Amino acid sequence: MLPLNKPFDLVLFGATGDLSERKLLPSLFSLFIDGRLQNDWRLIALFRRKHKNYLSRLRGVLMSGCEMTEVDPDTLWESFSKHIVSLSFDATDPKNYGELKSLVDERNEAVNIFYLATPSALYGKICSGLAEVDLNSEKSRIVLEKPIGSNLESAKHINELVGEHFQEQQIFRIDHYLGKETVQNLLVLRFANTIFESQWNQNYIDNIQITISETLGVEGRAGFYDHVGALRDMGQNHLLQLLCIVAMEPPARFHPDSVRDEKVKVLRALRALSDKDVQNKVVRGQYKSGISKGVAVEGYLKEEGIKPHSDTETFVALKVEIDNWRWAGVPFYLRTGKRLPHRACEIAVHFKEVPHSIFDLQHKNTMANKLVFRLQPDEGIRLMLCEKKAGPGVTVRSTELSLSPDYLHRKRVPDAYERLLSDVITNNQTLFVRQDELVAAWAWLDPILKHWEESEQGPESYLSGTWGPAAATLLLAKDGRLWDETCGPFDEDEAE
Amino acid sequence: MLPLNKPFDLVLFGATGDLSERKLLPSLFSLFIDGRLQNDWRLIALFRRKHKNYLSRLRGVLMSGCEMTEVDPDTLWESFSKHIVSLSFDATDPKNYGELKSLVDERNEAVNIFYLATPSALYGKICSGLAEVDLNSEKSRIVLEKPIGSNLESAKHINELVGEHFQEQQIFRIDHYLGKETVQNLLVLRFANTIFESQWNQNYIDNIQITISETLGVEGRAGFYDHVGALRDMGQNHLLQLLCIVAMEPPARFHPDSVRDEKVKVLRALRALSDKDVQNKVVRGQYKSGISKGVAVEGYLKEEGIKPHSDTETFVALKVEIDNWRWAGVPFYLRTGKRLPHRACEIAVHFKEVPHSIFDLQHKNTMANKLVFRLQPDEGIRLMLCEKKAGPGVTVRSTELSLSPDYLHRKRVPDAYERLLSDVITNNQTLFVRQDELVAAWAWLDPILKHWEESEQGPESYLSGTWGPAAATLLLAKDGRLWDETCGPFDEDEAE
Repeated sequence: MLPLNKPFDLVLFGATGDLSERKLLPSLFSLFIDGRLQNDWRLIALFRRKHKNYLSRLRGVLMSGCEMTEVDPDTLWESFSKHIVSLSFDATDPKNYGELKSLVDERNEAVNIFYLATPSALYGKICSGLAEVDLNSEKSRIVLEKPIGSNLESAKHINELVGEHFQEQQIFRIDHYLGKETVQNLLVLRFANTIFESQWNQNYIDNIQITISETLGVEGRAGFYDHVGALRDMGQNHLLQLLCIVAMEPPARFHPDSVRDEKVKVLRALRALSDKDVQNKVVRGQYKSGISKGVAVEGYLKEEGIKPHSDTETFVALKVEIDNWRWAGVPFYLRTGKRLPHRACEIAVHFKEVPHSIFDLQHKNTMANKLVFRLQPDEGIRLMLCEKKAGPGVTVRSTELSLSPDYLHRKRVPDAYERLLSDVITNNQTLFVRQDELVAAWAWLDPILKHWEESEQGPESYLSGTWGPAAATLLLAKDGRLWDETCGPFDEDEAE
Repeated sequence: MLPLNKPFDLVLFGATGDLSERKLLPSLFSLFIDGRLQNDWRLIALFRRKHKNYLSRLRGVLMSGCEMTEVDPDTLWESFSKHIVSLSFDATDPKNYGELKSLVDERNEAVNIFYLATPSALYGKICSGLAEVDLNSEKSRIVLEKPIGSNLESAKHINELVGEHFQEQQIFRIDHYLGKETVQNLLVLRFANTIFESQWNQNYIDNIQITISETLGVEGRAGFYDHVGALRDMGQNHLLQLLCIVAMEPPARFHPDSVRDEKVKVLRALRALSDKDVQNKVVRGQYKSGISKGVAVEGYLKEEGIKPHSDTETFVALKVEIDNWRWAGVPFYLRTGKRLPHRACEIAVHFKEVPHSIFDLQHKNTMANKLVFRLQPDEGIRLMLCEKKAGPGVTVRSTELSLSPDYLHRKRVPDAYERLLSDVITNNQTLFVRQDELVAAWAWLDPILKHWEESEQGPESYLSGTWGPAAATLLLAKDGRLWDETCGPFDEDEAE
């Protein structure tokens, strides 16, 4: 693998937070182990509360459960940790920015990467604090985590605050789904294979479904989640970003703005939803008690930290239409939720049925071709086909082509954050969300949020361990379709 | 599996011949073991020379090397062999037909299947012999093995002789390649999957290649082969039949005449070859000595039984064009030969390149999509795609989707003859060659045969163990193309 030959300081705000410790720092560590970080880098870890033994805490986070037979753990840790500087830091205290400035100025040649793993309410404050001490020069980059805002207005506001001090080409908005191998592979599969792209339109495709399902409930995040809900937490970012990747026109070049120009065109072509459309095309749900993976679980309203009569949705399903030449008449069905039967993220492209069957097909409509991209828990691609069952007569049965076994057994697939972190270091914005994309996504969602706010009807309840409320099934049944059933059971790993 | 519930007598002419003992009788035996033959059937084995112990000879043929742990071999053989009647029979002696008549008349209710595993020169004689004793009634069927004739005139003549006594719907002309599972699966894949059929034309396909390669030389068949050559032995039947299956329009129904109507349309749309075309688009070769599978082998002219200065071709390559709406401008490259590097039968459908690549593709023209149907030695289907190589950056590499592993490990794939034999018994002509197909194939080939006959130039020589003469490579190179290289090495089984 290529080393990332840029001297850099990664300044991490919120270094002891959940996201940092679960995703970001392990990814940095993986890049280091893979030899992709050269000597000339530092991690400047910032955290609000004082942590006496930050390094030993971090060692515990990164190296517990780590099995290394080839390397002595002490040697490894020593070589890694010597790159780390830690600092107690209050983002609201101007004095702290001066200290940070001195620390960063020690290395004049390094690129400065400010990674904001904090609530988005702090983004404006941190950016102005950095600007105060001239840490917003050309060699600074700023990385923002989702969710950015909670509706169109607040998202615009945050964009403006950040934009006062940083140019768009300095801003890296993370949607880690874009860093997943399968998402990038989807781009390659679409644009390097004529057999797919030539059929990637309303002439050949019947509908496209995107599912992001979790089996977990709110777990420890009740306070956060109850303010946010499924649509803001997963819909505004991941679901719509995946939709863009699937639906976009071929860009002229694989360059950041060529790609993002095409994505934002999709968002702007989404058919706007009236109040009535929200009633007909959007389903929100909230889980009741039930059986999740064989265990009895409580309903959402009984979870610790949830407001007694909370209206927050834990499930959302949407029928989305794209008003352009390519996709006219092809519905995109999106759904995401908690306490569903399986953890999965899948994009299922359903091709049209054969116009005329010369064979005796039972359940003809379930035999149409289908191309499925699975993003988690495992990554992979499957093509559903009809074939002849070997033996006498002509019995047609469905089968699947899957990427050759060496794909499945190939070495470790890098985590999305490894990819995105290295793209920040090498200054490649292709897989990051541009300001206009973010605004367009919120603009499309806003009528849903407003309608829900004003509606007297709350979310429909569904049993934990089922695929959401009956209305979600009906959403497709009204069109004579079913949700894809391939999000089947498999070994689950709820780590993400 | 369904039993074949028709009482029948299978009258086999040439029962001790190579084809009968290697293919036909083992297939009958397999049908028996699979329980597909009910009690009400007989095999009437005819052979010219007297064989004192025919049954014990046959037992040796069928049961040697047969491993059966569940059944007692003696019991099995007894239950099978009680269906067998054998008869010494001279096809040119009218008296013998009387005897056969008496034998067949013992069972009035049975369908009579006359299977002619003899040289086609005898077909007329046998048919008139059968007609003399009224064995050509409606309940008779006649099965003809290839090659039928040696050029257009002789093929027509044999058709006429047989047609004097039998109706077309009684005549089953075998091309055993049509009985192969993958060939039938090709029909299903084409006509039950929109993703393939919607691109099955000149808009999306660049070229199609069909290869039937053998590593063997003439072996024991020198006397036969030296009169026939590669074009008559493999080209007139297997290569052109596979071409028809790949190129035909979707039939309205999966019925014998609907399918064969479409196949004959393809043959009639083949662009006729002038003398000059034969020079430019047809390559004939003859193997010299060389290394075949690691062993030094003699050239064709030194094989026992070959005429000293024989002009017979052991290799042929053709560029075939189909003048219809679907295939205008798409060349079909066909080749077959002996003493080639590997034994294989593959149909490779090469799709067009992407019109514009946004990725950095090395060797762009080798990265185009390709769908490969392999008929032997193993059967299977592969789809070549481009995917992203996992890891940093965007490296595009080619990969393949293959039919899911359970296809490869599924139980025994029935031999083509089992399929065809059961189709004769159940009276289904779909996978048999109709008279007009046979004539159209010969009519298209005739100019090649005539040109060769009149030409002073013999076949070009090629080293044993190579892919034929240089002219065959040049045939595609002139069009900026290469022969498919996936006919790679694998475990070989030269049984067929």
